[in-house]
Amino acid sequence: MFFASDNSGPAHPKVMDAIMRTNEGFRFGYGADPEMNRVRSMVRDLFEAPEAAVYLVSTGTAANSIALATLTEPWQTIFCTKLSHINEDECNAPEFYSGAKLTMVADENAKMTPTTLHAAMSAEETRGVHGPQRGPVSITQITEKGTVYTLNEISALTTVAKDFGVTTQLDGARFANAIVTLGCTPAEMTWKSGIDCVCFGGTKNGLMGVEAVVFFNPKHAWEFELRRKRGAHLASKHRYLSAQMEAYLEGNLWLKLAKSANASGQRLADGLRKHNNVTFPFEPEANMMFFHAPRILHKKVQAAGAQYYVMGSLEGDDDELVLGRLVCDWSVGFDGVDVFLAALED
Amino acid sequence: MFFASDNSGPAHPKVMDAIMRTNEGFRFGYGADPEMNRVRSMVRDLFEAPEAAVYLVSTGTAANSIALATLTEPWQTIFCTKLSHINEDECNAPEFYSGAKLTMVADENAKMTPTTLHAAMSAEETRGVHGPQRGPVSITQITEKGTVYTLNEISALTTVAKDFGVTTQLDGARFANAIVTLGCTPAEMTWKSGIDCVCFGGTKNGLMGVEAVVFFNPKHAWEFELRRKRGAHLASKHRYLSAQMEAYLEGNLWLKLAKSANASGQRLADGLRKHNNVTFPFEPEANMMFFHAPRILHKKVQAAGAQYYVMGSLEGDDDELVLGRLVCDWSVGFDGVDVFLAALED
Amino acid sequence: MFFASDNSGPAHPKVMDAIMRTNEGFRFGYGADPEMNRVRSMVRDLFEAPEAAVYLVSTGTAANSIALATLTEPWQTIFCTKLSHINEDECNAPEFYSGAKLTMVADENAKMTPTTLHAAMSAEETRGVHGPQRGPVSITQITEKGTVYTLNEISALTTVAKDFGVTTQLDGARFANAIVTLGCTPAEMTWKSGIDCVCFGGTKNGLMGVEAVVFFNPKHAWEFELRRKRGAHLASKHRYLSAQMEAYLEGNLWLKLAKSANASGQRLADGLRKHNNVTFPFEPEANMMFFHAPRILHKKVQAAGAQYYVMGSLEGDDDELVLGRLVCDWSVGFDGVDVFLAALED
Amino acid sequence: MFFASDNSGPAHPKVMDAIMRTNEGFRFGYGADPEMNRVRSMVRDLFEAPEAAVYLVSTGTAANSIALATLTEPWQTIFCTKLSHINEDECNAPEFYSGAKLTMVADENAKMTPTTLHAAMSAEETRGVHGPQRGPVSITQITEKGTVYTLNEISALTTVAKDFGVTTQLDGARFANAIVTLGCTPAEMTWKSGIDCVCFGGTKNGLMGVEAVVFFNPKHAWEFELRRKRGAHLASKHRYLSAQMEAYLEGNLWLKLAKSANASGQRLADGLRKHNNVTFPFEPEANMMFFHAPRILHKKVQAAGAQYYVMGSLEGDDDELVLGRLVCDWSVGFDGVDVFLAALED
Repeated sequence: MFFASDNSGPAHPKVMDAIMRTNEGFRFGYGADPEMNRVRSMVRDLFEAPEAAVYLVSTGTAANSIALATLTEPWQTIFCTKLSHINEDECNAPEFYSGAKLTMVADENAKMTPTTLHAAMSAEETRGVHGPQRGPVSITQITEKGTVYTLNEISALTTVAKDFGVTTQLDGARFANAIVTLGCTPAEMTWKSGIDCVCFGGTKNGLMGVEAVVFFNPKHAWEFELRRKRGAHLASKHRYLSAQMEAYLEGNLWLKLAKSANASGQRLADGLRKHNNVTFPFEPEANMMFFHAPRILHKKVQAAGAQYYVMGSLEGDDDELVLGRLVCDWSVGFDGVDVFLAALED
Repeated sequence: MFFASDNSGPAHPKVMDAIMRTNEGFRFGYGADPEMNRVRSMVRDLFEAPEAAVYLVSTGTAANSIALATLTEPWQTIFCTKLSHINEDECNAPEFYSGAKLTMVADENAKMTPTTLHAAMSAEETRGVHGPQRGPVSITQITEKGTVYTLNEISALTTVAKDFGVTTQLDGARFANAIVTLGCTPAEMTWKSGIDCVCFGGTKNGLMGVEAVVFFNPKHAWEFELRRKRGAHLASKHRYLSAQMEAYLEGNLWLKLAKSANASGQRLADGLRKHNNVTFPFEPEANMMFFHAPRILHKKVQAAGAQYYVMGSLEGDDDELVLGRLVCDWSVGFDGVDVFLAALED
Repeated sequence: MFFASDNSGPAHPKVMDAIMRTNEGFRFGYGADPEMNRVRSMVRDLFEAPEAAVYLVSTGTAANSIALATLTEPWQTIFCTKLSHINEDECNAPEFYSGAKLTMVADENAKMTPTTLHAAMSAEETRGVHGPQRGPVSITQITEKGTVYTLNEISALTTVAKDFGVTTQLDGARFANAIVTLGCTPAEMTWKSGIDCVCFGGTKNGLMGVEAVVFFNPKHAWEFELRRKRGAHLASKHRYLSAQMEAYLEGNLWLKLAKSANASGQRLADGLRKHNNVTFPFEPEANMMFFHAPRILHKKVQAAGAQYYVMGSLEGDDDELVLGRLVCDWSVGFDGVDVFLAALED
Repeated sequence: MFFASDNSGPAHPKVMDAIMRTNEGFRFGYGADPEMNRVRSMVRDLFEAPEAAVYLVSTGTAANSIALATLTEPWQTIFCTKLSHINEDECNAPEFYSGAKLTMVADENAKMTPTTLHAAMSAEETRGVHGPQRGPVSITQITEKGTVYTLNEISALTTVAKDFGVTTQLDGARFANAIVTLGCTPAEMTWKSGIDCVCFGGTKNGLMGVEAVVFFNPKHAWEFELRRKRGAHLASKHRYLSAQMEAYLEGNLWLKLAKSANASGQRLADGLRKHNNVTFPFEPEANMMFFHAPRILHKKVQAAGAQYYVMGSLEGDDDELVLGRLVCDWSVGFDGVDVFLAALED
């Protein structure tokens, strides 16, 4: 009954097996391991992008920050929503790496829209050198509120970006969960929709800690490599990153794990929906959801052992609505969900 | 016969076991795992420093850069040798994190001396705001040339630093190897010798990729935490870092592994020393050595399968002296060394 | 008929005289000129702050950026309105100097309110190290829309800032114009209202290019000096900055010039107000105003020689409302205003 | 008798006249003044470079730092001598603006040589992403010790730079003094010798505070403009910078002033040379010189009113040699020199 985050569960056994298997003998470090050669090929195949530049780092914040820095000049501004991870949860790492600033795009259902993006980019009249210059757009998929951009929505946003002459990065910390929701291919959700760079997350979906950064235009490759090293994110014993990612890609493990997480998430949402006094401020479209419920309900399930974040105090009027966040990882399973829902009923 | 680097070998089985053991159930992330509580205690015990602030990061460059940034203001200069890892091998990461610059201290036997340090710090007359202000001293132990600072040497350097009112950081990527050489305690080699902050390396000594940063004055703790997060080096699934470090500390595994590496290094040095035409530009005092040998010798052992770095080409006059670098990790063993030495003899 | 900006007119003759007078013989540079000693005293007297640290720089962006950097840590966020000069018109200079980011506080009548500031500071829940930490509040007085914070409003904002444990900086590029509007003393508008640091502008009010930065707590002095030098803003021939500021302070020239500018501004606003089809989106409270008027009116006065910024095109439907901005500097005078108003009437 | 620095004397009357003349009526700011158009043309003519990008800033540190940042990537290193102004006297401003580091090139007679430059650039083996990448070379002309690079020497250095694929910047804070010594044209000392960017100093040669930055390849223009603004070095009332520079260029005032300064310098050097116990550690080739003299001599001339820097104390053994630095500006004149030399004789 642990729903606090999808970075809280264990790594998948196949990932651990791969780590074990790679742990023998000597390897050249810093990405020159043979595992990385295989990973590069597999990622290119997965994204149908034979020229793509592919790199691994160990945290999502590193993936976003170094990717964005590679796409941004320090006198530019990056367009994102106020809710985005790069704005709220990375303690200025994107600004540190890029030297740039972030401009907030208004969101609807936790997503920027072509209209709000266009408005923000137009408002950012640069008046020559005075204002920050327009830099890349960063889309968080799935959003921090659990909603999912459709392919059309992504295309519409990248069209706006292109109209202003800038690139678009996809923060895919929960990339796999979005693919499951949309039922599309990685290529469709990225370069076929106009995305220039994607952070393909693994940490929240069964790895110990690996994210792939993929540039569809390989011209960014060398700069990314230098920025990664300068940021102290080039692993010397890189094989342990490669092995995790290889296991993740093999037999589409990444997709299977996300299917499990999303199925749990939807079962949980369905269960919650049956309660008259539970409401969703955002439609739960993948494995994460926010819900308003009377305080008494939160108290009941937490007393029964459920762990998740509550925005506010558990002390107070029983009937008052309190916001909670639930995230299902690949491992929580229907059993975990059902125990939660049962606790809710009691 | 792999002597290219001590980051090329496998992690120790006990480390892998610990990784496996920690991989079950749910944990709060970002360092709030129970393993980290144990690690903190164990590191404090090891260093006899009950108040020390203790953190884990996944690369040595991150450990050095974030530690130094915490000790440095952006208008200062960090004192180190030209040979130091922070100067030559981190692609400006220390400058990136600190905003400061590095001033080269002349080295003898790859080590700065109180005289050269004093000279460098005196020469750096700041003349008010015009010159960079004096910042911390960074000592690499063991040095990048395989020599080891004695306790007296460290004390003498930290005394100079204190005279100028600045702190001293110890880059201990090969901390354990130095301890084995000196036969002293971690406390003796650090705070008892005047060191303010140490990067206690594990990656080059049997871990998959973990370094501990230890501040003996806990006032630096919060700033380090913020700088780590802003640098994208706070692992969400932190338990995998903690588990490695816990296994490393348990039963002094770290010391046993370094003893193995140093013993191999010394056996290798002894073997090389017997060759009339092999010379050491620096005395091999731990597990790493540079040696001059006729090209023919390099060709012979490399043909036999030995892997290590040669500074220059293997093409050319057989008798010409060519510089090579050999590093023994914990796993290479006497067998590996003896095969190398045998190849040399043939 | 030049109303484009208050940085477009000439410097006052007394300022030029002072420049001429200081231009003889030799002086030690970098702020060690005797003129600066006098300026420091005069500024302290003016602000009734005998301990204040006082510095001069040559641009308003430098004043804001270096002042804020001195008050901010790179993992923090600075609170300001979207309309503020530091957000819209400094091409990331505040972010460059501080390493921090900016958080937008909602504005009413172009001013943040205690309610919106409190909301923004509360929303910026830092959740440990994850979010940016709360940094200083920056208030622009007069605002970029020509409105003026009252003393009560400033006090209420600094109270919120203090409640969150942060400092408040006043961007006073048009400090003098605000003083004229409010009829208060510099001390009342700053430290007596809880302000910690003020940029006391001169460039927009009759100087060639000098701004004073004043810290009421002198503990910031040395850091500011180092940051100013590192930012390349320490003038070697500093006497030319000092002389301008001395002339500005002498006999309260700064106040006289602002009175002239504000009187022109109010006369201009009164004239515009008489037109049925002219409206002010923001009440003109000092020397700058925005106004909506039918395109035909803009075309008429611009054809008559008036120069000012129009937000949009002069091509189009004559009756459509178009936004214009008018700024009066000290030198434009009633004559200039009356010519403008006459052109409007024709 | 003021020989402390060439930034200590007054600005030339023609410069002041120009300031006065420009101080009337309204001008668009930020470099859009008509004076700047003329300056751009005049600088292009002077350098025989019709395509050059030309900008003005108010300090030499700004000129160097922003120019170098435009030529450098943050993962690179800039090659200069230890004695250079950018290394010793700018409090990390070049590092701040560029994000890069500085690598020291050994100097002979205060100048880097093709041999030492080649050695430094070769030693900086970058080994892939590990070491800092090679960035631009920065030459200080005249050197901080008063010596002057010949045209052949500059060409030889830029040839080395080009061999390594990097650009060369000339720090010409005392550009004019070097031109006088060499008797060549500005084009010969810059692009005809392979220089890519020059900081053409005015502040030390009769201006109040203006330096021109000239890029011979205009592709750098827009980046420089953005970096200047982001660094807070774009003057709003730019006409006052333009007017100074225009007066400086008109009728080759810049050359006349440097001729005066160098003539004074050479007269002073000749006078000192006659003393048996005065020696020059560096040959005085322009308007600045270092000299060793018995302490008694320093005491004598300083007692007579001479002002200049002495490296060390005036207290001590009369016969001990003490190092002094003398700099002649355009205004000190033969009279000033002769009074100094007379005081020496007494």
